[in-house]
Amino acid sequence: MKVINLKEKFNKFSSHWDPKIIGELNGQHVKLAKLEGDFIWHNHEHEDELFMVIKGKLYMDFRDRTEEVNPGEIIIVPKGVEHKPRTEGEVHVMLFEPISTLHTGKVKSDLTKTDLEHI
Amino acid sequence: MKVINLKEKFNKFSSHWDPKIIGELNGQHVKLAKLEGDFIWHNHEHEDELFMVIKGKLYMDFRDRTEEVNPGEIIIVPKGVEHKPRTEGEVHVMLFEPISTLHTGKVKSDLTKTDLEHI
Repeated sequence: MKVINLKEKFNKFSSHWDPKIIGELNGQHVKLAKLEGDFIWHNHEHEDELFMVIKGKLYMDFRDRTEEVNPGEIIIVPKGVEHKPRTEGEVHVMLFEPISTLHTGKVKSDLTKTDLEHI
Repeated sequence: MKVINLKEKFNKFSSHWDPKIIGELNGQHVKLAKLEGDFIWHNHEHEDELFMVIKGKLYMDFRDRTEEVNPGEIIIVPKGVEHKPRTEGEVHVMLFEPISTLHTGKVKSDLTKTDLEHI
């Protein structure tokens, strides 16, 4: 029940595409991530995923279009939907997703991170 | 998969202690609420509850202490823990909690809202 300050948490890491866990509730993780450049196409078979942009502009590519997500905005990607996050410059996001979620879905990539750090 | 802009959503209502649903994922609701004054003491037997402050200062009273939550900060109240949100002036929060969660817990009060509106 301690207050979590997002800015303080973002100051604790600088790596990209490397989500950090800042909270847990109801089987879900709250994570922070710094994004820069292109991620990979993937989907999450069983898990919906929420992105809230804190800083910068996130482009979320879907197979048929791209959505722009700005600070103070949220996008929810439903399970099964292929998506590719992409940025120009650094973007800070808060993520909300089940504890089981791997950020590259079933795609194994050099970018895939397991055993995420709690900060 | 539409982008949700928090400011636009907050502009759609003015009532206090009357959460509005803005999104759903993995059996959880994302809600917005405007708070002013004192809420009631309650707990949620089975549900953890996340408050993220968007505007203003939220005081979260627990039986043994009070936490102050400012914009850009989050507090997670675990299931079973008695709490009373309280403000001086208007506060805007985003909530994250299971679809089943009633904001007054098992306490029935004039403040209790059911059948929350989707905005």
